[in-house]
Amino acid sequence: MKEIIAVVRMNTMNQTKKALNQAGIASMFAHECQGRGTGLADVKILAGAKEGYEEAIALLGEKGKLYSKRLLTMVVHDKHVDTVVQTLIETNQTGKPGDGKIFVLPVTDSIRVRTGETGDKALS
Amino acid sequence: MKEIIAVVRMNTMNQTKKALNQAGIASMFAHECQGRGTGLADVKILAGAKEGYEEAIALLGEKGKLYSKRLLTMVVHDKHVDTVVQTLIETNQTGKPGDGKIFVLPVTDSIRVRTGETGDKALS
Amino acid sequence: MKEIIAVVRMNTMNQTKKALNQAGIASMFAHECQGRGTGLADVKILAGAKEGYEEAIALLGEKGKLYSKRLLTMVVHDKHVDTVVQTLIETNQTGKPGDGKIFVLPVTDSIRVRTGETGDKALS
Repeated sequence: MKEIIAVVRMNTMNQTKKALNQAGIASMFAHECQGRGTGLADVKILAGAKEGYEEAIALLGEKGKLYSKRLLTMVVHDKHVDTVVQTLIETNQTGKPGDGKIFVLPVTDSIRVRTGETGDKALS
Repeated sequence: MKEIIAVVRMNTMNQTKKALNQAGIASMFAHECQGRGTGLADVKILAGAKEGYEEAIALLGEKGKLYSKRLLTMVVHDKHVDTVVQTLIETNQTGKPGDGKIFVLPVTDSIRVRTGETGDKALS
Repeated sequence: MKEIIAVVRMNTMNQTKKALNQAGIASMFAHECQGRGTGLADVKILAGAKEGYEEAIALLGEKGKLYSKRLLTMVVHDKHVDTVVQTLIETNQTGKPGDGKIFVLPVTDSIRVRTGETGDKALS
């Protein structure tokens, strides 16, 4: 099983939730965070900052602010990872910087607190 | 070492924290999130939504709202995973839907910022 | 690729963000959490609580409160892990309890929502 973390725009949450439900993924948790991808930073300024130019670093200090994003987390069966990723792309892709990122992490075990069930049984 | 993520009810945090302390787990971090497990969605509606019935999807859109939950995260030695999971179950199990989920993820390394210690030493 | 989770003091976020930018890490997300490391709990009280002494447990119940911390998350190439960890230590180490912890977790895949790019390409 895998943990899927998606950092997406605030205003796409409802349609994302609905599309995931429709794809059969009902279990998830979400919270607000502040984030920034490389796409939201000016590449030249970033390159300058890497080389240690004080002015570029100063600009990043102002421009490189973090934006409010939604962080959506799910733990799903391996076989559902592709469906979830595709659903997240379909509901969040505008083609403009800030569309977000999806990360897939390995999960060793899941436990349903109500029943004590473990493994794949805890997910279904 | 492992990361243990627990999504539990808001009102069990104090007793959970106390029980984990008593079990020797003092290091943790927590935050509020909105979540939903499969148990909080009507199974028939969910099945209907999966099959693409517009009405079921519409119902999920209303009923499938996310509830406020507490997200508790710990990184512990492998040998403590069972104790933590048992403690979380004992303090959060009511037998009713919404008791929560526990996820166990592999961790490659831990670092204590104060001393620069790494690995198991950073956890003790 | 790896996920790096850092739990640091609230007031070091700006300098941490700036130092990470300068090190070439522009993509990250952050949120507030409540946390506590072992260093913020009295070791003797903790030991007493482990042995089941009611008084020690009661003291932990009061003293073992969670402090507001910043949680900073990044997913980076394996080759950048050391740089990020060193940068986080340099910007957050005061030598006093509460400096924070850094955790490194394995990541199976990353996807850029805008382009659908996967793997290392999604990070650069």
